[in-house]
Amino acid sequence: MTRHFQKELIKIKKMILSLGAVVEERVQMAKTAIDDRDAELAGRIIQQDFEIDEMEIEVEEECLKILALHQPVAVDLRFLIAVIKINNDLERIGDQAVNIAERVVFITKQEPVDFVFEYTTMAEKAQVMLKMSLDALVNMDVDLALKVCLLDDDVDDIKVIAYNKIKDAMAKDPDNLGYYINLLLISRHLERLADHATNIAEEVIYMIEGEIVRHGITGSD
Amino acid sequence: MTRHFQKELIKIKKMILSLGAVVEERVQMAKTAIDDRDAELAGRIIQQDFEIDEMEIEVEEECLKILALHQPVAVDLRFLIAVIKINNDLERIGDQAVNIAERVVFITKQEPVDFVFEYTTMAEKAQVMLKMSLDALVNMDVDLALKVCLLDDDVDDIKVIAYNKIKDAMAKDPDNLGYYINLLLISRHLERLADHATNIAEEVIYMIEGEIVRHGITGSD
Repeated sequence: MTRHFQKELIKIKKMILSLGAVVEERVQMAKTAIDDRDAELAGRIIQQDFEIDEMEIEVEEECLKILALHQPVAVDLRFLIAVIKINNDLERIGDQAVNIAERVVFITKQEPVDFVFEYTTMAEKAQVMLKMSLDALVNMDVDLALKVCLLDDDVDDIKVIAYNKIKDAMAKDPDNLGYYINLLLISRHLERLADHATNIAEEVIYMIEGEIVRHGITGSD
Repeated sequence: MTRHFQKELIKIKKMILSLGAVVEERVQMAKTAIDDRDAELAGRIIQQDFEIDEMEIEVEEECLKILALHQPVAVDLRFLIAVIKINNDLERIGDQAVNIAERVVFITKQEPVDFVFEYTTMAEKAQVMLKMSLDALVNMDVDLALKVCLLDDDVDDIKVIAYNKIKDAMAKDPDNLGYYINLLLISRHLERLADHATNIAEEVIYMIEGEIVRHGITGSD
């Protein structure tokens, strides 16, 4: 491996981690926006999404440049392909933060309902999964990546609980159906967010072990 | 370009189109399963998903092999990276067919409700988008790919209509809340399916024009 190539790899790692940090921040903002019914904060998530889009494009262009210039093989090739795919998942996590923000904007226009659901727990788990999957990428840590895949089941469990709780709340309080549907959608966006973190973790395992875990450990999504 | 490399490119095109054909068939099955409330057909979609997963892995491995062996640059490099990403979207469309199938299995266990919604229209549009995006890939047709991106707005419009219709139906028929929630979820899965077809079309445009449309024409998702 030439020194120049090594430098490029370090650069691309830094770039994907910078994007990861921004995406983590947006997820944190989305969690706070739900907790605090904060439409202003939600609006900022929506407005700033273009930054994530731009960073995604920069990372991909950089990967293509490295592939064309250095024509890496074996582990380095697999790493760059993994970065391209992880980059894509990070951008879509940003989209989920936007989707959540849009639901929050809707909800804050309504009177608050008397409904307690552990969105915070769900959002925190998704956040932890994202952080762990990025750490697994930096440290090439298969065990940590595997833990992310297992945590995905927890999020799915909470999603099912949310579904049942929301259905009950709808039956008891039919005047606020729109509100509850939007809560349900938030739980689905959080689930998808966790799915993307799982995709990242699976990419890390796949890259390191060259093994196919993508369609084994977690379900269909 | 060597003859051997040219042959490999033709092979990878065939592979991605075979996967596309299988995925199209699953979307068709999902549409029929909704229309006919067919749990047996839905079950087959769920059972056969592993085939799509295996095909996805084969396509990616083949791309990596070509990248390592032939070290392509410029347009060929961009094509192979596009195939890797499109491959990923196709697998996720398969996942959406599975998600729809799971909702159909739930729904068929309940008494049918008196509710008419144009799922067929929504599913048909998503199906057309998928077909067009794959045709755009084979024929390198930017105009066709652009049409897919525009159609995505139609699907989003139907989604909003579905949301309102379902909310009204829930208010009038609160005994069947679970049923309606599952109808809502089907409309969301169809929306995501259309999103993935849009991603494919955007990849095609990006590949051909080297231009960034991914974050311009369609919304955040």
